Amino acid sequence: MRLESKKKVTVNGKVFGGSKPLICLPLVARDETTLLQQAKAILPLTPDLLEWRIDRFDSVENIDTCMQALNALKKRMGTIPLIFTCRVDREGGCKKISPQKRLALLNAAIGSGEAEIVDVELCNGPEFIEAVKTACQKGGTKLILSHHNFAATPDEKAIHDQLLLAQDMGADIAKIAVMPNDYDDVLTLMSATLKARTGVVKIPIIAMSMGAEGGVTRVAGGLFGSDLTFAIGEASSAPGQIPIAELRQAMAVLYK
Amino acid sequence: MRLESKKKVTVNGKVFGGSKPLICLPLVARDETTLLQQAKAILPLTPDLLEWRIDRFDSVENIDTCMQALNALKKRMGTIPLIFTCRVDREGGCKKISPQKRLALLNAAIGSGEAEIVDVELCNGPEFIEAVKTACQKGGTKLILSHHNFAATPDEKAIHDQLLLAQDMGADIAKIAVMPNDYDDVLTLMSATLKARTGVVKIPIIAMSMGAEGGVTRVAGGLFGSDLTFAIGEASSAPGQIPIAELRQAMAVLYK
Repeated sequence: MRLESKKKVTVNGKVFGGSKPLICLPLVARDETTLLQQAKAILPLTPDLLEWRIDRFDSVENIDTCMQALNALKKRMGTIPLIFTCRVDREGGCKKISPQKRLALLNAAIGSGEAEIVDVELCNGPEFIEAVKTACQKGGTKLILSHHNFAATPDEKAIHDQLLLAQDMGADIAKIAVMPNDYDDVLTLMSATLKARTGVVKIPIIAMSMGAEGGVTRVAGGLFGSDLTFAIGEASSAPGQIPIAELRQAMAVLYK
Repeated sequence: MRLESKKKVTVNGKVFGGSKPLICLPLVARDETTLLQQAKAILPLTPDLLEWRIDRFDSVENIDTCMQALNALKKRMGTIPLIFTCRVDREGGCKKISPQKRLALLNAAIGSGEAEIVDVELCNGPEFIEAVKTACQKGGTKLILSHHNFAATPDEKAIHDQLLLAQDMGADIAKIAVMPNDYDDVLTLMSATLKARTGVVKIPIIAMSMGAEGGVTRVAGGLFGSDLTFAIGEASSAPGQIPIAELRQAMAVLYK
């Protein structure tokens, strides 16, 4: 019934672009102890994936501390894939971290073999993205190229073109998150996603409209071509996320 | 959070165009005994309204039998409002009934004071609609003017203009139901509804996309301006309807 992607990406048995959107829970802890407590609390909710937003981590600039926490986290996760993300501050990240430090952190995470997926913003530019891509190819890591707009919803073509740009830049998965000012913006996001899915974007897509109005895209966006939705386990990482149990019960009605 | 209508219509305390879409369950029985059994089975599901699709009734052309069944039905319904509908065959009705007979039946139902709301198709034309409107005004009955397309989804402007036409023809509530061929058609229906709601259509709206793909409009259409959704209690009256319990659990997530 829903529109699957032309290319699928499978990570530890989880299929991006298949018959149902995947559900991901974010981890946003400030230290390793809290990180592991959060993971322990939300793993029983059986998300398809976890995302560690390491930009919230107090020791984010200490690579050894980060890698130790990553290793401890992954030990508890079994085969659930991890999206490793150090969100850039101008797209919602918690801290300003230099590109050099972010790249070094990504390289370490990819090199460790413990991050099945990394998320990098398109705004980092071609050189940064090429460097991450090279590491990903070596490490067998999947690459999400993303764009976030917390202020507004660009027009349909601009949203579509960001998804296409992600594909053209070599992403395995294209992601966009935008802020609606009204329900018309919500329809714009869904319509742009659908155009990408039925058109030239062949890779899996993650697309959502944020905030209260955008909530419907977290539930129903999969029908229009979004392959993953972020829910709340213990804590939210963006406005408009819905607790996983509620999200699942609503999705069960829409995806038969 | 959702967009309320500029004019509201309240029937026995049920508000069309308020903070939440209403839920209506259809009755589609062939005889009075089955009708009353259906009502008994679905009233505990506490729908906001019931709709009796009398075009399915074997004795639909016998006004006395119809009025007796209507009276018996209403006795069991308490204050739950009834939508009384004799759907024309070319818009999904079960039987071909002459305009004269349908008008006489509507006049009898309105005159009995037992149908709080009647639904009449726009395709009946101005003369038929004027006659029903006069009766409604006398009887204090609310009028839905409707359009159904079981073959396709017209373009956004055409959908919008049907809703506007219903308002211009004197409807209390405007209804449109269309069949999507793909998810783009589903977005077209939602977008047309939203344009009507935020624009010149001031009365409450009932709008849905039918079939499997349209299911999302039965759950989320209220966010884009639809004020009532039809669910399944015992039996469905159109393709794509969702069982009321499932519909409610999904709606609970979207309408906070």
